[in-house]
Amino acid sequence: MTTGKVTLLGAGPGDPDLLTLKAAKVLAAADVLLLDDLVAPGLAELAPRARVIRVGKRGGCRSTPQAFIEKLMHRYALRGAHVVRVKGGDALLFGRAGEELAALRAAAIPVEIVNGISSGFAAAASLGISLTHRAHCHGVTFVTAHRQDHGEPDWARLAAAGTTLAIYMGMSRVDSLAAGLLAALPPSTPAAAVQWAGTPDERRWTGTLGLLARGVAAAGLGSPAVILVGGAIGEAAVRHAETVPAAALSRAA
Amino acid sequence: MTTGKVTLLGAGPGDPDLLTLKAAKVLAAADVLLLDDLVAPGLAELAPRARVIRVGKRGGCRSTPQAFIEKLMHRYALRGAHVVRVKGGDALLFGRAGEELAALRAAAIPVEIVNGISSGFAAAASLGISLTHRAHCHGVTFVTAHRQDHGEPDWARLAAAGTTLAIYMGMSRVDSLAAGLLAALPPSTPAAAVQWAGTPDERRWTGTLGLLARGVAAAGLGSPAVILVGGAIGEAAVRHAETVPAAALSRAA
Repeated sequence: MTTGKVTLLGAGPGDPDLLTLKAAKVLAAADVLLLDDLVAPGLAELAPRARVIRVGKRGGCRSTPQAFIEKLMHRYALRGAHVVRVKGGDALLFGRAGEELAALRAAAIPVEIVNGISSGFAAAASLGISLTHRAHCHGVTFVTAHRQDHGEPDWARLAAAGTTLAIYMGMSRVDSLAAGLLAALPPSTPAAAVQWAGTPDERRWTGTLGLLARGVAAAGLGSPAVILVGGAIGEAAVRHAETVPAAALSRAA
Repeated sequence: MTTGKVTLLGAGPGDPDLLTLKAAKVLAAADVLLLDDLVAPGLAELAPRARVIRVGKRGGCRSTPQAFIEKLMHRYALRGAHVVRVKGGDALLFGRAGEELAALRAAAIPVEIVNGISSGFAAAASLGISLTHRAHCHGVTFVTAHRQDHGEPDWARLAAAGTTLAIYMGMSRVDSLAAGLLAALPPSTPAAAVQWAGTPDERRWTGTLGLLARGVAAAGLGSPAVILVGGAIGEAAVRHAETVPAAALSRAA
């Protein structure tokens, strides 16, 4: 019996057109797909040969424990299958790739990685802005609002780095993250949130850090969304002023 | 006369297979391509209808001034052409997209953005590691070593944020950036550098921050490369120990 292999594949933000050519080829040849919740449902159609297993695991829920996902990868790969573990965005940004890679290597199962477009980039494209406009900053920090120890990052320290912040998984604690950032940044700092960036269901809000928590609530945005904060985001606030309903803004102010 | 449009397109790290499906479609339909230096030369073959103009502008050189690139975009778009401005990686990370978007909007020229895979992600894929292994960190900071004012970022403050660092355009000042980071991080902090990530010419070095400056020199790595620093990178140091020639390491030590 030949050992199969596992590909960790980033499916991008949701629009199937934002898959890479390489990802499309790998899907077409897959024997087994392990699909995350955040992956567009239509993606399975690109893998006509594959047995499709949904292993969604939304922040906090435990519908499919991580250990069981790793067990499935092992089981099918050891039977000789080409297993494709499909993750939203890029497989190497958040989402447990580190643990999965370590587990696969420990079992001597060959593994390859196919990059994807992370939703922070899709959010910036939707807003029509650079993440790093050099008049404003010299970098961008992608950070999750949920640490492994269930605490939050040190927002003031992140803000002090002077980079644009792209915050993932922050919508459920937008009040406390905004308060944390306001300890280091003025309320006038430009901010935006984009839900389902790069998909037909996309929704966005632009404004300032001072208005962020109430603004996204008033605009009805929820998870999954990327929150963007920093001077470079101001280019979007100018451009999309018309997309913020005046009523929502006055409720939020 | 109809006004054309401009697409800012991220061509990914170099491997044509890492283009998105959307990017391939846009290239196939392009009338004019404005190609950066860092874009794979073969890319023009994907745009058979297009007039191809090379506007390379390597860090520091002035072969094609930014103002002239913007003038070319305007000129062809105002003649009704679909102009595709092709950038390496993702168009919204470094590389003057902010200025180009502002200039196009000021001229009322329609503009769209197509995301690409940035080389930091390709470097992590090549090393077989997560950028944000949650046992080590809660985020990653993409930063350029060259600020607009020709100074360097505040390395100690960036290091204090506790994220993995992915440093672009840092090879020409690797000594000073390593020294800056060593003011805040121990010499044993894992580090790596990947040149031409995701292409057949790829070269990489893995080691520690204390060995970084001499290590990349001894291994013969140059620009363009991404330098990665942080605990999460240690997973690569373990995996690729064999790729670092012992002679290079002892010279560097």
